[in-house]
Amino acid sequence: MAELKEACGVFGIYDLEGGNVVPAVYYGLTALQHRGQESCGLAVSNTKGEAGNIQFHKDLGLVSEVLRRETLEKMSGDLGIGHVRYSTTGASVAENAQPLVLSYIKGTLALAHNGNLINTKELKWELIQNGAVFHTTTDSEVIAFHIARERVHSDSVEEAVLKTARKLKGAYGLVIMSPRKLIGVRDPYGLKPLCIGKRDHTYVLASESCALNSVGAEFVRDVEPGEMVIISREGIRSNRELAGEKTAHCVFEYIYFARLDSVLDGVGIYDARIRGGKSLARSYPVEADLVTGVPDSGIPAAKGYSEESGIPFGLAFYKNSYIGRTFIKPTQKERESSVHMKLSVLESAVKGKRIVLVDDSIVRGTTIANLIHMLKKAGAREVHVRISSPPFLHPCYFGTDVPSNDQLIASIHSTEEICRMIGADSLGYMKLEYLEGMAGGLPLCRACFDGNYPMEIR
Amino acid sequence: MAELKEACGVFGIYDLEGGNVVPAVYYGLTALQHRGQESCGLAVSNTKGEAGNIQFHKDLGLVSEVLRRETLEKMSGDLGIGHVRYSTTGASVAENAQPLVLSYIKGTLALAHNGNLINTKELKWELIQNGAVFHTTTDSEVIAFHIARERVHSDSVEEAVLKTARKLKGAYGLVIMSPRKLIGVRDPYGLKPLCIGKRDHTYVLASESCALNSVGAEFVRDVEPGEMVIISREGIRSNRELAGEKTAHCVFEYIYFARLDSVLDGVGIYDARIRGGKSLARSYPVEADLVTGVPDSGIPAAKGYSEESGIPFGLAFYKNSYIGRTFIKPTQKERESSVHMKLSVLESAVKGKRIVLVDDSIVRGTTIANLIHMLKKAGAREVHVRISSPPFLHPCYFGTDVPSNDQLIASIHSTEEICRMIGADSLGYMKLEYLEGMAGGLPLCRACFDGNYPMEIR
Amino acid sequence: MAELKEACGVFGIYDLEGGNVVPAVYYGLTALQHRGQESCGLAVSNTKGEAGNIQFHKDLGLVSEVLRRETLEKMSGDLGIGHVRYSTTGASVAENAQPLVLSYIKGTLALAHNGNLINTKELKWELIQNGAVFHTTTDSEVIAFHIARERVHSDSVEEAVLKTARKLKGAYGLVIMSPRKLIGVRDPYGLKPLCIGKRDHTYVLASESCALNSVGAEFVRDVEPGEMVIISREGIRSNRELAGEKTAHCVFEYIYFARLDSVLDGVGIYDARIRGGKSLARSYPVEADLVTGVPDSGIPAAKGYSEESGIPFGLAFYKNSYIGRTFIKPTQKERESSVHMKLSVLESAVKGKRIVLVDDSIVRGTTIANLIHMLKKAGAREVHVRISSPPFLHPCYFGTDVPSNDQLIASIHSTEEICRMIGADSLGYMKLEYLEGMAGGLPLCRACFDGNYPMEIR
Amino acid sequence: MAELKEACGVFGIYDLEGGNVVPAVYYGLTALQHRGQESCGLAVSNTKGEAGNIQFHKDLGLVSEVLRRETLEKMSGDLGIGHVRYSTTGASVAENAQPLVLSYIKGTLALAHNGNLINTKELKWELIQNGAVFHTTTDSEVIAFHIARERVHSDSVEEAVLKTARKLKGAYGLVIMSPRKLIGVRDPYGLKPLCIGKRDHTYVLASESCALNSVGAEFVRDVEPGEMVIISREGIRSNRELAGEKTAHCVFEYIYFARLDSVLDGVGIYDARIRGGKSLARSYPVEADLVTGVPDSGIPAAKGYSEESGIPFGLAFYKNSYIGRTFIKPTQKERESSVHMKLSVLESAVKGKRIVLVDDSIVRGTTIANLIHMLKKAGAREVHVRISSPPFLHPCYFGTDVPSNDQLIASIHSTEEICRMIGADSLGYMKLEYLEGMAGGLPLCRACFDGNYPMEIR
Repeated sequence: MAELKEACGVFGIYDLEGGNVVPAVYYGLTALQHRGQESCGLAVSNTKGEAGNIQFHKDLGLVSEVLRRETLEKMSGDLGIGHVRYSTTGASVAENAQPLVLSYIKGTLALAHNGNLINTKELKWELIQNGAVFHTTTDSEVIAFHIARERVHSDSVEEAVLKTARKLKGAYGLVIMSPRKLIGVRDPYGLKPLCIGKRDHTYVLASESCALNSVGAEFVRDVEPGEMVIISREGIRSNRELAGEKTAHCVFEYIYFARLDSVLDGVGIYDARIRGGKSLARSYPVEADLVTGVPDSGIPAAKGYSEESGIPFGLAFYKNSYIGRTFIKPTQKERESSVHMKLSVLESAVKGKRIVLVDDSIVRGTTIANLIHMLKKAGAREVHVRISSPPFLHPCYFGTDVPSNDQLIASIHSTEEICRMIGADSLGYMKLEYLEGMAGGLPLCRACFDGNYPMEIR
Repeated sequence: MAELKEACGVFGIYDLEGGNVVPAVYYGLTALQHRGQESCGLAVSNTKGEAGNIQFHKDLGLVSEVLRRETLEKMSGDLGIGHVRYSTTGASVAENAQPLVLSYIKGTLALAHNGNLINTKELKWELIQNGAVFHTTTDSEVIAFHIARERVHSDSVEEAVLKTARKLKGAYGLVIMSPRKLIGVRDPYGLKPLCIGKRDHTYVLASESCALNSVGAEFVRDVEPGEMVIISREGIRSNRELAGEKTAHCVFEYIYFARLDSVLDGVGIYDARIRGGKSLARSYPVEADLVTGVPDSGIPAAKGYSEESGIPFGLAFYKNSYIGRTFIKPTQKERESSVHMKLSVLESAVKGKRIVLVDDSIVRGTTIANLIHMLKKAGAREVHVRISSPPFLHPCYFGTDVPSNDQLIASIHSTEEICRMIGADSLGYMKLEYLEGMAGGLPLCRACFDGNYPMEIR
Repeated sequence: MAELKEACGVFGIYDLEGGNVVPAVYYGLTALQHRGQESCGLAVSNTKGEAGNIQFHKDLGLVSEVLRRETLEKMSGDLGIGHVRYSTTGASVAENAQPLVLSYIKGTLALAHNGNLINTKELKWELIQNGAVFHTTTDSEVIAFHIARERVHSDSVEEAVLKTARKLKGAYGLVIMSPRKLIGVRDPYGLKPLCIGKRDHTYVLASESCALNSVGAEFVRDVEPGEMVIISREGIRSNRELAGEKTAHCVFEYIYFARLDSVLDGVGIYDARIRGGKSLARSYPVEADLVTGVPDSGIPAAKGYSEESGIPFGLAFYKNSYIGRTFIKPTQKERESSVHMKLSVLESAVKGKRIVLVDDSIVRGTTIANLIHMLKKAGAREVHVRISSPPFLHPCYFGTDVPSNDQLIASIHSTEEICRMIGADSLGYMKLEYLEGMAGGLPLCRACFDGNYPMEIR
Repeated sequence: MAELKEACGVFGIYDLEGGNVVPAVYYGLTALQHRGQESCGLAVSNTKGEAGNIQFHKDLGLVSEVLRRETLEKMSGDLGIGHVRYSTTGASVAENAQPLVLSYIKGTLALAHNGNLINTKELKWELIQNGAVFHTTTDSEVIAFHIARERVHSDSVEEAVLKTARKLKGAYGLVIMSPRKLIGVRDPYGLKPLCIGKRDHTYVLASESCALNSVGAEFVRDVEPGEMVIISREGIRSNRELAGEKTAHCVFEYIYFARLDSVLDGVGIYDARIRGGKSLARSYPVEADLVTGVPDSGIPAAKGYSEESGIPFGLAFYKNSYIGRTFIKPTQKERESSVHMKLSVLESAVKGKRIVLVDDSIVRGTTIANLIHMLKKAGAREVHVRISSPPFLHPCYFGTDVPSNDQLIASIHSTEEICRMIGADSLGYMKLEYLEGMAGGLPLCRACFDGNYPMEIR
């Protein structure tokens, strides 16, 4: 039950044979909805029509709310991009929804961005000094403006994108659409994911492989860290000029963000979480009758803990899936907690049992404390908490919305204190040294746990 | 992934100390939402105010859509009832939403009904002969009209309810609200569930115990088959005049309808489904590497199968919870199936494995065939299907929306044929003789499987 | 700027050649919108289809809000009725919207009612004694229930309507639709209007002739007081059994309610209002430079005053037509009045002038006082107020929403006092004896002015 | 019944004593709604709070639809601007709604623009060459970008506005809001109106004086052609550097655009239209019984015609005010025309009469032809049409949406031909030489009639 928020998901598609890609963008964004529930949008271009005639629609809301049948039926194009967003920078207003659609010297440009830059201020200042005017408060507009500026002295849009990318510091997975090209760029560290898929003559770019599957495309490969791919009528080309030696993939994609059925940079998310659970079992063994996970985020690691320990895996909670964003939370006076409405204990599954309860992280600690209390009230004899990530101790500058230190229980209290505060019989956090193994040996950015940022933060 | 539809859920509450029950009705209906997603509503009365001043609101939509904060804040009362509905009889129009709120000789009456009568035609004819006029096409209106008619020659509303109940044939869980009384009635066979809860001076009636928990009330007991309970300022009274010798609880509550954390007529739903899975394991053992359930309905029985067989229990699918009612389904041309968007396979969890796939029922067979195909495509070596109910062969007259025979795969094909058609390596249906054991020994109505209806159907 | 509210408008249509009447009902109701802006609805039947299959849609809101293209395109039928409503009896809730659509012994029935009964209580009591149950708080439901009850012992629906009509006391213009008949009934006094139109093989019934024009139908004649007309596949028939000797048409239709381009009972509304203005000029002559009316209700009488007096007629106010129901009224602190936003003075048209300001009625007096103040502030030398109706002194029991006595300025103050209170230089009300002349000699109900009700009120 | 579309209306307000101006912007925009019904919006700043914290809301729709109570209650500020828009340039999409709210080197800037530039292309090219990126397709964004660019080398925002204004060619009434200043600018020819009002310590800028009245402000004076006014905490200052010798006020404000109760550049709109009608009477006298105007635009000139000719002025049509933008127009098959639904003839007012029918303009001629046909069908003996403007012959480049030549009846046909085509008995257009007299002697831009544009059009 992670309370962290992911920034965004991006999607791009180009049907070289001219088929309409609007439905595919819709299905791709639906598959990426878990990466952002605040706003969404899509932009499409007809590459055989008049250049620059981009149609777009975006607004606050879920994909199913913003992209209604009536809206989609009016749009058509063989080249399109889409975006789902949770705001980490920029206010939560309709104006900040993406894709950004802009016109500039060379026609039109649409851009969707996942991630967070750390030199936005400098980049913006450079533009502002020259009289640039901003409509939004997003990093994405800064990137788009630099591309437009560079385009004046460039031979092609990809050259302008490349020149711009050289200046960007931070995390980004970008999909960019010029009237007749689809471009994808990934930051040199590979902090944010981006992959390539193909279906017949159609190329797809997406934050996660699950979105490829949703449109029937085969996974081709990940965009490499620092790589730019250009998809045009001639097919796909690649530029790796920005690639560096060091890569650092965001560890939290493997712990929580990415969808269970995705494969990012060669590592299956389900496998990673199973491995995470197994390592927890090795680090913190305990005698127990049942291993269970907090729905839904703790379930796979619980399964891994079970596999390693031999303790049976099972359910302990029922989750009411009808409690959505409009749910009216009970007041104190009404005696119920929101957690009670969302999750209820399966009493006979836990009664008299010693339970290992696995979750992906602890932020404030209130939710897990509630769940432990519920389990004990239902008759659980012991509740041993295992967390499939180390304690959060440092801010993330790359797009993950880690709360500030004073709200992080781990930055104030020791593990023993937290264990007592949440009412657990024992508590074990994933050890730092096992993170890389969990993520299949990939080089990781795990700065939120150890403070070692892959690049200098000023 | 049962494709059957439940009729309804009902909820009633009376705070004898005069507190506002509107929030509690909201939470109760939220907890019962799984029983009906088509329309919902609530009605409240202020027992200390002018009699008959009932406020109500109802419409097509989910609880979270129909009962918005603005609406609820304008309502207040210490006595209230609520309803969630999926239409089995009556069209899907706003007019058919419940509770019904009516005025008649003795003031006002609100009524919410779960179930289906089999003598509606006769009951309606009797009224119509005397000039009755109907606004809706629901059973509930027929019941309410008879109550009103009986009230003329009765000393109290409960007497009128009793006289009416004597005439009703079929399944019903009723909550009725007169300006100062809350009445609950359950049909003599106990086909539909209804239970009693209490919190301090507040009495609660609900279709399932999970709704009691949602408002912090303790479970007191089930309303008995054929019992009428009357809650008034004096407390709770009971009338068992209608109770017969034979009871027959709907087996499908235990297989699929009821919420996993509810206890109906003394039998925990989670336990029943675990037992169902165990009996499947005994009836149809198989050598396999993984037991998994179709989300969400097949999960508990899969766990039971695992416990009995010793084969590890685990997940095989990711479920996209953002695919709701407004999801635009792919057309044939777009190559994707809705099942693909809603469920995707966790490849590494199934690759190379022999899998036992458990679900609660097969209606048309298309969904399970799709899932088997997906598992095999992802590398599953074998897929053995186990169904925690016998094949559907007979219509239900009591409120369960079993499709007509020509749409039921089991009424046309043998188990062997179905196994082949869906592409399974083996297929086993729960055996009829184990149903009662699954439901903890309760006498059951299992007519949809064996054609033995608890009462004569004309 | 009358502040009185009309009850309703009704519309019925039957295309004997089977054409779809849904668009015509829409246009008819749009033409009658001035008679009720609170809710509206329509019901249609396909007389060649299965009997009783009535489609309907109704809700709170204007015709343009409730009857959207999407809704209307799904409906079709050759027989239909419609209704616009302002609530005088019954609360302002969606449930009270009309037409009422009911099922009873002989199938279905839809009914739309304009007017108010004075024996509703007795009629309801009779039904309630026999166990009737009411969904709404409208007169219309009482009428429909009696029709249904009578139908049991009648040979035809028209016989049941007739038997029912015999019991009704009060004002009514009814259109009733059985699956294959359209019936119109008008109360014996003719208090409420109803007329007949025809276009090729299509018959139309409507509260006002303007609605006939809106669908291209020719005016045939008014339904006579106490007449019932039955339109079926065989054509139109008539029953005049209920007709009495005395008729009494509602005077306020001529003063304010009816549309300027309608002709009711042979009297053109425009002509009547011109005559009203002329009689005011004869009763209260004054030396002045400009005759003007309060938009829009005072304009025609002002023109009449001008014609008789020879004083030029002109405009004095601009009316902002964008101020609708959702307009957020200024608070006291914001210093502006709603009247100021809605109407502003054309300064140069009034500066230095002696003005005759004509309106149709004074209820509370605040609006006219505001307007006089605005005129004087803009430089008008004198403002002489002429009201084209006598002072309200008595309640209306037939559907006009005259405020209670303590809110009627004329029931507390003399004309001289009112003149002073509103800041006018002189004030003249239409004299009682000229009302009949205004309405072209028709026998009138003018009880709101003189207390002489056409029937006994208990 | 002019079919021309005005571009926009602007409004700005600054309460130097810190009061909340949000309600005043709402009332101001409501008063200006006639100038644009496609989209609207407002932006407010709290001058005592943190600079640059501008709140805004804008969308497609009327003021009453876009600016709902819930929205306005969340906004607060002592400095604000607002806009109503009908699109002449730029597509009709929500993104093009105004005010534009931008951030740039010196913080934030909000801008609302009425009018049309003729050198947008050049201005945009200059920006685009330097890498500017556009979100919208409006002139307004081009203006805002130049201001931002100039701001880099300017000491104040007003200096940047002035430098920008020097480059603008065309028509503009601008209100600009920096975090602590309200600036108004009017183009050197005064093509578009803008005026200043005051209420206590509150300054107001508005396109028309009627908007000042709506917020209780006194008219102070018009912003002069080429003048920039700067309202800051120190009060109001003025810069007239841009003022030239020649001015040319848009004649169509006086004929049709401006509200009847406004006074623009010292000339009352009501007076102008009365004078227009009088000059028509002198140019084209005729023997007739009634002078009437096409509602609502022809009414005042009809009154003027009546005053000059002595022929009585009166109404001939009833206008259904419930026919709004969502009205479903009848199809050909349904035999009714939209004109019929919107306007109906007052038969007894016209029967047997010789009528002078006055309107403000003829664009395609279909509407007036319909009305003449309706009048004759109702018994009018003669219909003499008088148009209070000369025939349209030339395009407008300054913001008035004159249709292209091939749609203008007057560019293809002679007056005699038109008279015959529309079925009139005579037809007279306002003579060019009388336009200036109509507008009180003001120098006018009347290029749409005579092709003499006040500036060179390339």
